[in-house]
Amino acid sequence: MNKNQLIFREATIEDLDRIVYLLSDDVLGNKREQYKQPLPESYIKAFQSINSDPNNELIVACYGEEIVGVQQITFTSFITYQGGWRATIEGVRTASLVRGKGIGSMLIQWAIQRAKDRGCHMVQLTTDKKRPEALHFYEKLGFKASHEGLKLHF
Amino acid sequence: MNKNQLIFREATIEDLDRIVYLLSDDVLGNKREQYKQPLPESYIKAFQSINSDPNNELIVACYGEEIVGVQQITFTSFITYQGGWRATIEGVRTASLVRGKGIGSMLIQWAIQRAKDRGCHMVQLTTDKKRPEALHFYEKLGFKASHEGLKLHF
Repeated sequence: MNKNQLIFREATIEDLDRIVYLLSDDVLGNKREQYKQPLPESYIKAFQSINSDPNNELIVACYGEEIVGVQQITFTSFITYQGGWRATIEGVRTASLVRGKGIGSMLIQWAIQRAKDRGCHMVQLTTDKKRPEALHFYEKLGFKASHEGLKLHF
Repeated sequence: MNKNQLIFREATIEDLDRIVYLLSDDVLGNKREQYKQPLPESYIKAFQSINSDPNNELIVACYGEEIVGVQQITFTSFITYQGGWRATIEGVRTASLVRGKGIGSMLIQWAIQRAKDRGCHMVQLTTDKKRPEALHFYEKLGFKASHEGLKLHF
């Protein structure tokens, strides 16, 4: 695999099936997602919401015709930090067959550059404490685990 | 102070000066914010972005004419969790004169109800590890510190 041939682009509706497959092919994702045919309508609605929102981008990493990675980047204007914009990264996954080849790093570095191009002052994400290896991965990329990430599920 | 008289509403541009004051009157906020007259243009631009975005709400708690609390709630459509919507809470502050009177709890409970009304499946936030008392505050409200909150500042 030649990583120079990876292409990063916004996802289209035709990519959605593969994206949901990638999200579900994961130790935590397989409990949360529902990958089946036809895809549950909720995924299609979410894709449409993201696609029509200029501050929300679903990005795929492609190797030839194959989607080998995905991430979602959301840009938000906050009042804090003197009215600064932040990018939030969510749902980062790489295909199990190509894990450990640096595609995850390239996805995050792509997101960091995109955030800079959009004038953000910060990139942020949360990572489940059940994934200690992910924490190390993000720290190597320059992130600081300065915050607790709190969730309240309904 | 009779908490039953608190009113929660979306902020207007006339409230912005007081909001920036509240954000800056804080042990971490006083390093990040710039409260001066006239207010830096970046705050006004951020207010306009938030105000024109149906998925971004700046909420104030009012006691009579006085703004005694503020928070920002952002609603985001993600592909993860079967295309679920989440609410993210940011920039929660109460006026120093009324701290410890339960206004912070009422702000968060208001946000939780708002998130339910909007069809979210989760409310999330990050809290700086330099605020251990805040972690306890959110845990009492039902949040779980299941994630690490990672930030990369440019």
